[in-house]
Amino acid sequence: MANYKLLIEYVGTKYSGWQIQDSAPSIQGAIEQAVFDFCGEKVECYSAGRTDAGVHAIAMPAHIKTSKEYDIYKILMGLNFHLLKNNHDISIINVEKVDDDFHARFSCQKRFYIYKILNRPIRPVIEKDRVWWVYKPLDWKLMHDVAQNLLGKHDFSSFRASECQAISPIKTLDYIGINKIGDIIQINVNAKSFLHHQVRNIVGTLELVGEGKISNQDFIDILEAKDRKMAGPTAPACGLYFEKALY
Amino acid sequence: MANYKLLIEYVGTKYSGWQIQDSAPSIQGAIEQAVFDFCGEKVECYSAGRTDAGVHAIAMPAHIKTSKEYDIYKILMGLNFHLLKNNHDISIINVEKVDDDFHARFSCQKRFYIYKILNRPIRPVIEKDRVWWVYKPLDWKLMHDVAQNLLGKHDFSSFRASECQAISPIKTLDYIGINKIGDIIQINVNAKSFLHHQVRNIVGTLELVGEGKISNQDFIDILEAKDRKMAGPTAPACGLYFEKALY
Repeated sequence: MANYKLLIEYVGTKYSGWQIQDSAPSIQGAIEQAVFDFCGEKVECYSAGRTDAGVHAIAMPAHIKTSKEYDIYKILMGLNFHLLKNNHDISIINVEKVDDDFHARFSCQKRFYIYKILNRPIRPVIEKDRVWWVYKPLDWKLMHDVAQNLLGKHDFSSFRASECQAISPIKTLDYIGINKIGDIIQINVNAKSFLHHQVRNIVGTLELVGEGKISNQDFIDILEAKDRKMAGPTAPACGLYFEKALY
Repeated sequence: MANYKLLIEYVGTKYSGWQIQDSAPSIQGAIEQAVFDFCGEKVECYSAGRTDAGVHAIAMPAHIKTSKEYDIYKILMGLNFHLLKNNHDISIINVEKVDDDFHARFSCQKRFYIYKILNRPIRPVIEKDRVWWVYKPLDWKLMHDVAQNLLGKHDFSSFRASECQAISPIKTLDYIGINKIGDIIQINVNAKSFLHHQVRNIVGTLELVGEGKISNQDFIDILEAKDRKMAGPTAPACGLYFEKALY
């Protein structure tokens, strides 16, 4: 038996999300099919993050266990060949042999996400489906300052999706930083792990801060309320990127 | 009569280029149709650059002359409404009223282009159709240094498409700079004007420099030969962006 770590880039637009489903195309399903097409083995592919429909990945780690051993370069080229042939918006950017106990999800020590807001009056075409288009001008410096309230260990219930399956709503946010590059407001966050929709619910609430509808004190109150109904809407999936993970 | 300057963003992938054609969709045709749909006027739309099929624009200036006067905000919203309705990959990002003698092509003092090469072993998905994918590692610093030979006034015949309609092959290149950001090698160039395919032919030749197939002296010899057959191939359209123009 052999265990391989994959790094995967994908555009989530046409997929129902990471997780395999019977009725809709998924990233996991596409990769498991590519592995089968490559070597005839039925494997399960586990990833560091189970992204939602429409969410992208720059370098998502995942692992597959095969009964036979294969050359890593052949896996890389073989999987990409079958993904390309089936017109998938998925590339395997690296393959590495790892210890048997490596688990892309459970061994993960840190996850990095990027969220991109295009802040200008007119809808994007170059960045279509790659950003959240917000036409009202946002005060990104204020968003950055207010976001710092989230740092450290908190009960993030106010930013947790109702369908979240995590045992506890308590998470530790290690970093949140907001910058503007041209018309793009970029939000970088990292933590060991996140609740379901946590990043998108944080961004949806910070957007209201940027509009001037929520003050710093309101934001603190929202966090302390531990009530999803207090926070802003869930930001669209298309602006979110799983950037990378550390082990 | 009124003269309006438009700034246009577009993804060139599904168009035959800027210029209107009977048999294929063009940027110019889409905009002229949107103007007609907006106000019932048949206008000609002239741009600073007549980009080829597959080439993109970040902020392409153009102008339209209408017989009646319209509010610039209504033009902006009206054109974008009709472009979006017809599923075009085109946005009008600004509209401005200008003097009658303003001509987007003939008044232009400087044109800026960006060319993007994704330099990594694996094909892109996030940047699909937005970059030239080169899997062989390129020495971008050498490319930058060698490119400096192009600065100033030269006979650019070695980098001129056979179908180029310019009267003279002599042009003055004001700037060429090459940088690497992540896996992207970005080439920035500007000049008052360019020959047909000049940027793509320069990039196609510099790519061979980056591979180590053409030395600095070879590159000087190519420029001095004034012979298109001496230079490298034309780089793909998908990596080229008309960035902006000055008047």
